[in-house]
Amino acid sequence: MAGEMVPKKILKVLQGECFDVPPFWFMRQAGRYLPEYRELRAEKGGFLAMAFDPKAACEITLQPIRRFQMDAAIIFSDILVVPMALGQHLEFVAGEGPKLEALADTQDLCRLSDKHFDVLDPVFEALNLTRAGLKQEGFESTALIGFAGAPWTVATYMIEGGSSKDFYKTRLWSYRDPEGFQALMDMLVETTARYLIKQVEAGAEALQIFDSWSGALDPISFEKWSIAPTKEIIARVKAVHPDVPIIGFPKGAGHNLEKYVCETGIDGVGIDQFTPLDYVSSNIQTKIPVQGNLDPFALLAGGETLDRAAKEVLDSLKGRPFIFNLGHGINKDTPPENVERLVKIIRGESV
Amino acid sequence: MAGEMVPKKILKVLQGECFDVPPFWFMRQAGRYLPEYRELRAEKGGFLAMAFDPKAACEITLQPIRRFQMDAAIIFSDILVVPMALGQHLEFVAGEGPKLEALADTQDLCRLSDKHFDVLDPVFEALNLTRAGLKQEGFESTALIGFAGAPWTVATYMIEGGSSKDFYKTRLWSYRDPEGFQALMDMLVETTARYLIKQVEAGAEALQIFDSWSGALDPISFEKWSIAPTKEIIARVKAVHPDVPIIGFPKGAGHNLEKYVCETGIDGVGIDQFTPLDYVSSNIQTKIPVQGNLDPFALLAGGETLDRAAKEVLDSLKGRPFIFNLGHGINKDTPPENVERLVKIIRGESV
Repeated sequence: MAGEMVPKKILKVLQGECFDVPPFWFMRQAGRYLPEYRELRAEKGGFLAMAFDPKAACEITLQPIRRFQMDAAIIFSDILVVPMALGQHLEFVAGEGPKLEALADTQDLCRLSDKHFDVLDPVFEALNLTRAGLKQEGFESTALIGFAGAPWTVATYMIEGGSSKDFYKTRLWSYRDPEGFQALMDMLVETTARYLIKQVEAGAEALQIFDSWSGALDPISFEKWSIAPTKEIIARVKAVHPDVPIIGFPKGAGHNLEKYVCETGIDGVGIDQFTPLDYVSSNIQTKIPVQGNLDPFALLAGGETLDRAAKEVLDSLKGRPFIFNLGHGINKDTPPENVERLVKIIRGESV
Repeated sequence: MAGEMVPKKILKVLQGECFDVPPFWFMRQAGRYLPEYRELRAEKGGFLAMAFDPKAACEITLQPIRRFQMDAAIIFSDILVVPMALGQHLEFVAGEGPKLEALADTQDLCRLSDKHFDVLDPVFEALNLTRAGLKQEGFESTALIGFAGAPWTVATYMIEGGSSKDFYKTRLWSYRDPEGFQALMDMLVETTARYLIKQVEAGAEALQIFDSWSGALDPISFEKWSIAPTKEIIARVKAVHPDVPIIGFPKGAGHNLEKYVCETGIDGVGIDQFTPLDYVSSNIQTKIPVQGNLDPFALLAGGETLDRAAKEVLDSLKGRPFIFNLGHGINKDTPPENVERLVKIIRGESV
């Protein structure tokens, strides 16, 4: 991008700076709680149709920024585009979530190859359009975030064939056939790194790696299947783009969080709503910038519950590098007025 | 019980003693992975029918002891008998789990009262029969454990109407109407304490309180809805039976585990499979006897995976007061031979 550099708070925090008013964005900020999103969705007829329509994806990414002027826009997409790039069929069934042709064992891996990588082209085009759109609409301090799922989390969908409660098949496969499972991880590392590198080249200024189901792993498996593949992806991305900041979000990591922070090479870490604030400020924030961790149910509930919970997060984490966010995605039933109220609280305005 | 006292290892551990071969039992040890259980279930026609048939419940409780001579038998029952004792209708739909008439709001609490408490009589009778059965069959060193669900966990079923992925209604109710939610908690504390006291009088020698969904709570809610009601139940039980040991199992407590251990008044704590062993030995086991925490998927996988995982647990936790258990219930597909192998490993026998 040519022209004068506008300071982007969120990128500065990821380099270790502090602000009295922290930068903020919200996971799933572009989505179903916004009437303008629901309108576009009704018109376009479904989630994947929108995610692979660069203009629609750009429009949806910009929608929350127009309302709330977040410090980051995250590209509208899904972590399951990577299995698609490996040739696995994906569809979203209304009310049921994602459905994939489940992988049964190592032999099924031969069905996968990254010759399907160009299905991701619309994502790169959407990033391009959005970066230009942010500038055009005057959101020059809003950074554009690209993202991918961590290999463990993506593998659970590829093996279970969709969402899961206990990740039975994935956990069992990883125990019974660790070499085969490692082969799947290696494929995911390779394709995910390539995908993130191309996102940076298409305009992403920061990246987030979502390990949404890392909380299903015992500590030894956590090291093998969450930390190690994430570390490898980060090394590969940084080899090409050493300056792009990468946020890791190992949801539910619990007592494995500190190891994740120390070993993966991430620049910032997303904290879930289950992690106590005093632990974050004294054990994590002393090592790395943090992002989080308001309980999405407090945002859904609104009113004094929200005020109190948001102020606790702010008071506890403001003194060190900190990006305000939720501990998990915005719930679809959240009234947009609650989000407006939260933004005012973060900015220190009266509500 | 008259006659010579047989030392029961598990009770001694809960008083702070250590053993080279630790006592052991497994959550859901009486259940679907055993062919003799499946046979009886087919005959009796369903879970509740068995749980409320004292002879069947006794028989099922004894089945795993006959095979594996565990140091504890846990009475065959369910945490959802407490909602039944409060007058809420419960049924188990095959393949779908428990179904209850969901409570919608505080007004629905008037539907509940403990005048239905005598539905629990068959549980007390089953405890009586089992205590006698253990003696009769020569398992004089096996202790009988009674149990209940913690109020938060039981409330999620009462409000969601069954199992849930995100506990949406429960979490929202607790935020939007904390007084109404507290009224429900108070009812559950009262009835659960009364239930546990009567279990001791019917023959239970130790108690376990399962807070299976405490991991869904942010730290402030964890204090209010997991720690506080559990503490109150323990105080009430101990006021009547000061010597009965009580094990708390706050699954998924993560960073809230230490506070739970220090504040509830429990005598021992169940550790889930997500908690690192070095953390357990240096931060928890120094305060209280621990029970856990083999990954049930390692038991399901069997072979070297099981050997390695079991030895890690043993090596890490053996030096201090320790009861070997899983980090969660036995998976129904677990081959009984794997359980046999595990028992040998715990006992230091060759496999």
